[in-house]
Amino acid sequence: MNDENPNAAAVPGSLMAAEVAEQPAVFDRILTQSPTDVAAVAARIADASPRFVVIAARGTSDHAALYFKYLVEIVLGLPCGLASPSTTTAYAAQPNLSDVLWVAVSQSGGSPDLLESTRAAGRAGAPTLAVTNNAESPLAAAAELHLDVRAGAEKAVAATKTYTATLLTLWLLVDAWRGGRAEAAADLVEAAEAAVVAPGVDLVAGHYRFVDKIVLTGRGYAYPTAREAALKLMETSYLAAHAFSGADLLHGPLAMVDNERPVLAVVPHGVAGLAMEPVLARLRDRAADLTIIGDREHAGQEPAILVPCVAEELSPLLEIIPLQRLAHAMAIARNQDPDAPRGLSKVTRTT
Amino acid sequence: MNDENPNAAAVPGSLMAAEVAEQPAVFDRILTQSPTDVAAVAARIADASPRFVVIAARGTSDHAALYFKYLVEIVLGLPCGLASPSTTTAYAAQPNLSDVLWVAVSQSGGSPDLLESTRAAGRAGAPTLAVTNNAESPLAAAAELHLDVRAGAEKAVAATKTYTATLLTLWLLVDAWRGGRAEAAADLVEAAEAAVVAPGVDLVAGHYRFVDKIVLTGRGYAYPTAREAALKLMETSYLAAHAFSGADLLHGPLAMVDNERPVLAVVPHGVAGLAMEPVLARLRDRAADLTIIGDREHAGQEPAILVPCVAEELSPLLEIIPLQRLAHAMAIARNQDPDAPRGLSKVTRTT
Repeated sequence: MNDENPNAAAVPGSLMAAEVAEQPAVFDRILTQSPTDVAAVAARIADASPRFVVIAARGTSDHAALYFKYLVEIVLGLPCGLASPSTTTAYAAQPNLSDVLWVAVSQSGGSPDLLESTRAAGRAGAPTLAVTNNAESPLAAAAELHLDVRAGAEKAVAATKTYTATLLTLWLLVDAWRGGRAEAAADLVEAAEAAVVAPGVDLVAGHYRFVDKIVLTGRGYAYPTAREAALKLMETSYLAAHAFSGADLLHGPLAMVDNERPVLAVVPHGVAGLAMEPVLARLRDRAADLTIIGDREHAGQEPAILVPCVAEELSPLLEIIPLQRLAHAMAIARNQDPDAPRGLSKVTRTT
Repeated sequence: MNDENPNAAAVPGSLMAAEVAEQPAVFDRILTQSPTDVAAVAARIADASPRFVVIAARGTSDHAALYFKYLVEIVLGLPCGLASPSTTTAYAAQPNLSDVLWVAVSQSGGSPDLLESTRAAGRAGAPTLAVTNNAESPLAAAAELHLDVRAGAEKAVAATKTYTATLLTLWLLVDAWRGGRAEAAADLVEAAEAAVVAPGVDLVAGHYRFVDKIVLTGRGYAYPTAREAALKLMETSYLAAHAFSGADLLHGPLAMVDNERPVLAVVPHGVAGLAMEPVLARLRDRAADLTIIGDREHAGQEPAILVPCVAEELSPLLEIIPLQRLAHAMAIARNQDPDAPRGLSKVTRTT
């Protein structure tokens, strides 16, 4: 054990690697154990018939919130916003939240600003739902409704299995809300098992061994994956990793893409992949060093990391898995311990 | 003129420098000419009494949208979200937008995805407002309501005066909506004149001359400023500039802050500044190279760039001005032409 950081295990990165590999089992547990709870929460929300959804989250959970935003807007046809918690906690704003569903997403359930803004949302008239990995947490207790993402204890500082467990739980909620019975997830566990061993990760990690700036991009459902992968690379390998939606990339940051800065594009089949084709073309025009992760060839380029094909809505649950492995592999190659990023602890207390 | 880029003027950066310096005059024009139009739009919106606000924007305008989101939530007490235009344009989502005010922000008014999503919002029942710098643009024509930000033609590729003109126009709208008469802006033009010549910019540019990775941070009203300054540094100097809200910075990206990566913090007086104090303390614990831009000392550290003190709501209109100058100065010092960033053109067409 490292005296300076109690999170550090004997073998650098062994905690993170184990938790990445555990994700298929976590998916299986959620799909087996969560449907009853999810159905009850979905029924309660349907009774409240919210007109607008506001999601509060920070860090990795913010990327799960962004995935949920796409689901809510596309599948449920409800406008949805990401909360700025400081408007409540710092500025003491008192918005009128009748007809609003407030969803707080936090793996620890311990973030003071989410707790305070969730309590304020309840007082302002919103049904509140907490989605956490800790049913005993203050946030779970403060919200009217709670869903446990059932990821089990997460020991590595970098969140991996709690992220995908949160995505799957949020997808189940939306699917139940629209009257589904998780049919699209029938093959998900098997697909996740393939993603955990998807080839290509080590080759890409070797290609990026001496990179210190990188751009990640995706559109639609794939955009949260680009954001979350960038955060993992920043946290564990200290890369300057920037994530942009494919559309925003063309509005300025494209100027940054040069010989020293590769681009990693998340390109599933379906709408998100189609919408990326003009972005891929512009990147090729600039002779960008372009690596694709996805489930098929796009415009003549094979994915360097091939993930199994599932429904587009569920593709973010798989694509992030080899990218978590990439962050882990790059940290190890650079002699960093991904289980003990400098300056971080597991629960971040912001107010 | 440079044959490859018609935007390049004879003296590198002269277009951008002139437009940065023009901002006090633009503020004066807006404060003189816009109140009647703004009052009419505010009255029309008050009639519609929206329950939620959704804002659509890309690039620099997205940072103006984020500023507007804070204003709407804090000053008006309405929940507010930033649209994901691709949910309409790529996924053909058809959200129910009754009781929603849809605001599209675009300096050119020419972005096809904003045009399409704004038309869809109108069909879905929302009053729509376009805020542009081109009253003849398709977006201005497509929206039910329009506000011209009156910045005049912007020739440099990097948006500067259109950004602050948009902030001021959005602030005037919120101020009229709450029944104000722009009292807080009485000294704004004079303060902007001081910001245009605020000392410290050249010293900071010299300090950062060989930096290629930088973190910008701020909270509340100052967070959009951190985001926009990062974009300017990326566009004109190709720095790997990351912006984080002070709270999010502590949730992972803090690990990136090291000897090679300085931190530029936007710290006004008031709530946004108070909320940054624990963040500044953590950065000092990590011995970060920390530069402050703000209107007073914070926790014993004088701002390296001192901006005039105005109402906190209006501070983002001033703080960005020296940061635009910093982006310009760094580009020139690195022998780049900030008027002609590689790979960019003025109107970005994303669909």
